[in-house]
Amino acid sequence: MRYAALAAVLSCTPLTLFADPLPSWNDSDSKNTIIEFIGNVTDPRGPNYVTPADRIAVFDNDGTLWAEQPVYFQFIFAMDQLAELAAQDPSILSTPALKAAAEGDLQTILEGGHDALIEVVNASHSGSSVEVFQASVADWLGTARHPETDLPYDQMTYQPMVELLRYLRDKDFKTYIVSGGGLHFMRVFAEQAYGIPPEQILGTYGETTYDSVDGTPVINKAPGIAFIDDKEGKPINIERTIGKRPIFAGGNSDGDFAMLEWTTAGDGPRLGVLIHHTDADREWAYDRESPIGRLVDGLDKGPDMGWVIVDMANDWSRIYTGAN
Amino acid sequence: MRYAALAAVLSCTPLTLFADPLPSWNDSDSKNTIIEFIGNVTDPRGPNYVTPADRIAVFDNDGTLWAEQPVYFQFIFAMDQLAELAAQDPSILSTPALKAAAEGDLQTILEGGHDALIEVVNASHSGSSVEVFQASVADWLGTARHPETDLPYDQMTYQPMVELLRYLRDKDFKTYIVSGGGLHFMRVFAEQAYGIPPEQILGTYGETTYDSVDGTPVINKAPGIAFIDDKEGKPINIERTIGKRPIFAGGNSDGDFAMLEWTTAGDGPRLGVLIHHTDADREWAYDRESPIGRLVDGLDKGPDMGWVIVDMANDWSRIYTGAN
Ligand SMILES: [Ca+2]
Ligand SMILES: [Ca+2]
Repeated sequence: MRYAALAAVLSCTPLTLFADPLPSWNDSDSKNTIIEFIGNVTDPRGPNYVTPADRIAVFDNDGTLWAEQPVYFQFIFAMDQLAELAAQDPSILSTPALKAAAEGDLQTILEGGHDALIEVVNASHSGSSVEVFQASVADWLGTARHPETDLPYDQMTYQPMVELLRYLRDKDFKTYIVSGGGLHFMRVFAEQAYGIPPEQILGTYGETTYDSVDGTPVINKAPGIAFIDDKEGKPINIERTIGKRPIFAGGNSDGDFAMLEWTTAGDGPRLGVLIHHTDADREWAYDRESPIGRLVDGLDKGPDMGWVIVDMANDWSRIYTGAN
Repeated sequence: MRYAALAAVLSCTPLTLFADPLPSWNDSDSKNTIIEFIGNVTDPRGPNYVTPADRIAVFDNDGTLWAEQPVYFQFIFAMDQLAELAAQDPSILSTPALKAAAEGDLQTILEGGHDALIEVVNASHSGSSVEVFQASVADWLGTARHPETDLPYDQMTYQPMVELLRYLRDKDFKTYIVSGGGLHFMRVFAEQAYGIPPEQILGTYGETTYDSVDGTPVINKAPGIAFIDDKEGKPINIERTIGKRPIFAGGNSDGDFAMLEWTTAGDGPRLGVLIHHTDADREWAYDRESPIGRLVDGLDKGPDMGWVIVDMANDWSRIYTGAN
């Protein structure tokens, strides 16, 4: 009986007080600043206390929560999707860009510029219901493997960031994704991968139409991009959809500059975090010259604005959720 | 001591089990159907149980959660706002529609059709930051009175619906507004009036821009409507913003038809509710012929789709939150 009582007491002891909430982060300034910030805004007796309703944290996805090299994973899906659609109906490959995409010839598409990209996105991301599209994404995630790591794409999420998201939620933050990536694409895996439900995912979205099929309403994905959730679009979408200014923002490229600027320019305690890809051995090293995830303004101006620049090589003891 | 113990036991007794959760609803089929539905989807042992994450309830605002006669309250604000802006700078009244609006001459504006309405909305709802605009709305709500009831507009919310919203949330529903009204306008009063926070309000929205004023970022309201949250726009916005199909939807006009159709066409238990304005004595009576809140399809097709048609005169014992 005495042991049972002791066990009961122990099971009620908040062991998390002593456990490291961010075990995949090395003991560094980055980690300490983040933990200190979260401690400050959640300390009800401290001068920087923020009420739970205002604990809004927003995160970019590509390059912030999961990898993005050699090209955005959604674009690899688009090429694979086109190849699959073309296997059933080769006539859909009606332009050079679409033919290149179905062959996985990224170079030709990139040479075609913006128009070519839009062609590929339209052809691979419209023409079906949202439901059917998302089933395709789920199928793809279940079978496709990254060309370099051979990992399923949704295991190339960053373990340190998954821990940070969980830690923020443990501290009554509401965590959101605010990504240049596609809304419908992300919703397929974000809840399982990050613990973020559909209604907390903001992204780029295409036009949709409300149609009736044999008397049953269905929402279809139509050609055309309705909103691009990048650069100034991020704070605009946050204001429109959340209606509150976040107090914590994480990103990795200049596409996140406005979001971090908007977040940290408000009154009271705020934190901006940029993931700097410095780890050529375990991941990739890129910043100012990279066509994917270009980071210039954040490196030049971020530190003066108090932003944490996470040095992936030095600050993270582990990279991917799916591999040690 | 014995009394103290008794009091302690009583204070722990779930009296709400016996209390009427909808006291301003008369004992009628409408009330019973709603209570039965909520009981069914929240009974963990029943066949119709819905997990809390999927308990999404969406509500129109004008004519559903608050009154909308003789014209949408937001339009009365627009006219008052124009008059106030013109008092400082008469040159802003540069068209006949704007002059009419500032004089409260609704008839002339309506005769000007869609273009006149857009002129009035643009002139009254843009040209300032979101923050400044919302401060104007708050000022107006604090001083303006309805021409017939003499009530502050935000006390012309419907007490039975406020009770329903609270009851749904008590049962772990997430309650949303999905309204043709303006997003920024509604967010000023919806949290206090309905208990619905900014991130659960969907509405029509104008263009916004991310600007810098003396180095400080600001989000400004620009001319032009970016999205109209009405008719098919409602399910499209729900899919886009919430990403889940609601199981409960409330509305009052044909602008809500698609939202109720989308909600109730899904699998499993679902409920659509239409408020039918039948109460000329205590509120207004209008439906098929009304330019505001026109209701034809809902009356013709709703009952066959299992929707509850609330007869305001007979189903509600009390109308406004602000008056008995
Ligand atoms: Ca990124
Ligand atoms: Ca309405």
